[in-house]
Amino acid sequence: MMLINGEFKTVIDATDRGFQYGDGLFETIAVHNGIPVFFNQHLERLISGCQKLKIPSPDKQNLINEVRLLCSQVTGSAVLKIIVTRGSGGRGYKQPELISVSRVLTLNPYPIYPSSYYSNGINLCICQTQLGLNPCLAGIKHLNRLEQIMARAEWQDTDTQEGLLKNCNGYIIEGTMSNLFFVKNGQLYTSILNQSGVSGIIRGLVINIAMKNDLPITEKNIDEDELLNADEIFVCNSIIGIWPVKRLNNRQFKVGEISKKIQSWLQALQDENCSILF
Amino acid sequence: MMLINGEFKTVIDATDRGFQYGDGLFETIAVHNGIPVFFNQHLERLISGCQKLKIPSPDKQNLINEVRLLCSQVTGSAVLKIIVTRGSGGRGYKQPELISVSRVLTLNPYPIYPSSYYSNGINLCICQTQLGLNPCLAGIKHLNRLEQIMARAEWQDTDTQEGLLKNCNGYIIEGTMSNLFFVKNGQLYTSILNQSGVSGIIRGLVINIAMKNDLPITEKNIDEDELLNADEIFVCNSIIGIWPVKRLNNRQFKVGEISKKIQSWLQALQDENCSILF
Repeated sequence: MMLINGEFKTVIDATDRGFQYGDGLFETIAVHNGIPVFFNQHLERLISGCQKLKIPSPDKQNLINEVRLLCSQVTGSAVLKIIVTRGSGGRGYKQPELISVSRVLTLNPYPIYPSSYYSNGINLCICQTQLGLNPCLAGIKHLNRLEQIMARAEWQDTDTQEGLLKNCNGYIIEGTMSNLFFVKNGQLYTSILNQSGVSGIIRGLVINIAMKNDLPITEKNIDEDELLNADEIFVCNSIIGIWPVKRLNNRQFKVGEISKKIQSWLQALQDENCSILF
Repeated sequence: MMLINGEFKTVIDATDRGFQYGDGLFETIAVHNGIPVFFNQHLERLISGCQKLKIPSPDKQNLINEVRLLCSQVTGSAVLKIIVTRGSGGRGYKQPELISVSRVLTLNPYPIYPSSYYSNGINLCICQTQLGLNPCLAGIKHLNRLEQIMARAEWQDTDTQEGLLKNCNGYIIEGTMSNLFFVKNGQLYTSILNQSGVSGIIRGLVINIAMKNDLPITEKNIDEDELLNADEIFVCNSIIGIWPVKRLNNRQFKVGEISKKIQSWLQALQDENCSILF
């Protein structure tokens, strides 16, 4: 089900700058029992992304109404994707003087993952595709996603659930669709995203949860050896929540106590979030 | 006028990966009197780009027929844009097992530029927006163009015709829509594009022309001081051809003999190309 600029339809003008140049942003939001989970955080990031790319923010109330309309259709779970683009017009890369943003809201089926991914962990590979270095776009959840697509095409075996990407400086930044954390000696670490990567909503929440619970958390440049010597590793995003890692390359990891704690803290936060009338 | 997967229409499925992720490529081709100029070179680059991004190449004869159909509508001049995407489908970044590429061909009006840009030169600025470093995407004319859009949004004054971008290493790579050359002591130089930038068709032709005419040409990392001390500077692309530069920052440049020679060599090549029945 798709709502494009307020209309139920499935096509977009091919002149849209989202299609012509990837000139836009997106959010991927879990919907449970009609509630878009952590919606305020997603909306905030979307608006902040618009500001960074100098795209006018879509009307907030309008967008909320559209999200409500779509979510009211959901029984059980679904994935809501919101795309905002700079709309049509302009001359080549030059944007039009009057920008009329496009909003594309899509409800997709919730992916079915084995529950073992959550409880027993997943297998990771390290991709050959590198993330570019670009401070002016780093962190933003924009529509220029060729790097992730190239990386995700590297493995076909169903025994590998996620691939990690290094950036051109050789640091491990994130997964193709997730952010990365590791635990060493009771301390939590995640990658710095000032050169590459996407600043995920769950990543932000995990950092906040850790700080609230007096768990030391550090953003740093992570190299492969350091990660292979971690006590625990996990990846996270808005749809999977937190998946512990049980294998990286040929190294085995246990699902550690800190990962489990963070899973339960996040679950509690999500339950609280879902109890508020949207 | 737009031809989308063989049909005259103007909309594309919003599920198209070109729209969702910028998962595709494009070509911008000058059309004069029904002839798409340097079409073989554009077609070759498109196919080579598809190979690099592992997108199946569109059927060549089919594409040629569609280009012919559109170009037959052109009296005078027009701009033909060809977009090829990985089509719809897949799960998130993961591409579908069976890829059905999308082809979007658009005829746009030819932009009207003062003839003085060609004969007397243009004014350049240097943009603040940096080009990212990414060897796996460098050179490819793909649909991830946020950097160019951010850069082009930096200036509004009509007295500046193009902006140059540095990459994150501080080297000047290209213009927002053009490649860069300069002349020093009778030698021609252009940027290396192995980390950032788009490998333009006219850039390739200029390099070939220079070599055929025993004009020494070197690809190198160009820094700002070096460029400001050049004897001649020009930028090029498929629509503007070659524009000499008369001002960069506050430095004035003359339209030099080598720039003029290359303009006339390229014009001769274009005339020859347009005389072949397409």
